[in-house]
Amino acid sequence: MQAVRDGSRWMLRLDPGEDVLPTLAEFARREDLRAAAIVSGIGSVNRAKIGYWDGSEYRPRELTVPHEVVGFSGSIAWADGAPSIHAHIAAAGPDYQLVGGHLLSATIGILLEASIDSFPGRTFGRPLLESIGLRMLDLEPGPAG
Amino acid sequence: MQAVRDGSRWMLRLDPGEDVLPTLAEFARREDLRAAAIVSGIGSVNRAKIGYWDGSEYRPRELTVPHEVVGFSGSIAWADGAPSIHAHIAAAGPDYQLVGGHLLSATIGILLEASIDSFPGRTFGRPLLESIGLRMLDLEPGPAG
Amino acid sequence: MQAVRDGSRWMLRLDPGEDVLPTLAEFARREDLRAAAIVSGIGSVNRAKIGYWDGSEYRPRELTVPHEVVGFSGSIAWADGAPSIHAHIAAAGPDYQLVGGHLLSATIGILLEASIDSFPGRTFGRPLLESIGLRMLDLEPGPAG
Repeated sequence: MQAVRDGSRWMLRLDPGEDVLPTLAEFARREDLRAAAIVSGIGSVNRAKIGYWDGSEYRPRELTVPHEVVGFSGSIAWADGAPSIHAHIAAAGPDYQLVGGHLLSATIGILLEASIDSFPGRTFGRPLLESIGLRMLDLEPGPAG
Repeated sequence: MQAVRDGSRWMLRLDPGEDVLPTLAEFARREDLRAAAIVSGIGSVNRAKIGYWDGSEYRPRELTVPHEVVGFSGSIAWADGAPSIHAHIAAAGPDYQLVGGHLLSATIGILLEASIDSFPGRTFGRPLLESIGLRMLDLEPGPAG
Repeated sequence: MQAVRDGSRWMLRLDPGEDVLPTLAEFARREDLRAAAIVSGIGSVNRAKIGYWDGSEYRPRELTVPHEVVGFSGSIAWADGAPSIHAHIAAAGPDYQLVGGHLLSATIGILLEASIDSFPGRTFGRPLLESIGLRMLDLEPGPAG
């Protein structure tokens, strides 16, 4: 991947074969990025797994042919001492129809051009909300958050 | 909702049951946000009404089951002394297919993580363009705009 | 079109009948914008041509009825002495279903509200990668890039 910055804003290029979520997590760890919005992303994926929350779990669907990535956004927080990436994706297959949802995993096809806005000096949390079984973004976690 | 800022950039979290457009309008009024881009948003909605402009009106469609919000963007302007929110949404239902359009209304499911970039010192207008019957964004309204 | 800025961030409004990619290229040339993310865009198009990369070419599909633009993002780079715009689009037709992909061309319907974040002092490149036959974003091109 490539990454350049202007103050608190970043532009990234992910490369063929890179695993999107681990690559972003490693980037966040390296740059100590603890609070950020993933504001945009386009490119393509060779494979991806997307999820629909059915009330108790993310029901997964695999995309097994290359898809154009038409939308990619989300947030970077920190949970249990590590980066926590939450992203949703919109992708177009050979029939141009868009499918999408919660991003469970994806492997870059040709590239992903993504822009990220960080919030310096902040740490967003992502604590587990036990009542629903999901981690939830917390923009202002307390010292123990 | 939660809202944190870094200069002219904001990160928001809308919470379960919140009505998206009134919540954003109230936020804009409270922060006196008169010119902004809604640059990204992900999460889920329990219900939503989306519109397709058929040349004379927004033909509505209701989404009555929870959908993952995969895209959410638009603008905040000021019209008739009040915030004017214009947003489009892309949403995935249980079949992962994306539907979307002009956002007429939506109720948050689990959350909405949204980022907003404001343009301090500016006021965007949204005057009614009578020839087509729609309010149109005006980035540089005059004193009477 | 209208364009206003706050530092390195821009908000644009494209107007009815404008051809999206040439209009953005002309804007980039006029403002000497050599490195930017197109982070969001909503509005409508009257016609558009979208592409799916099938491994050797962009297989095109024409949208011949007005579509709501629900997602629009990408990047602005510089190649062969001219702006190089790369954008993907998500669009909803009268059935609210989203289609999308690589943007080959589009004509504005009612408007396009778009936000752009530039990276001052940088030039992104878009050299042809002959092995795959596509131009690829290069965030840190060398002096000859």
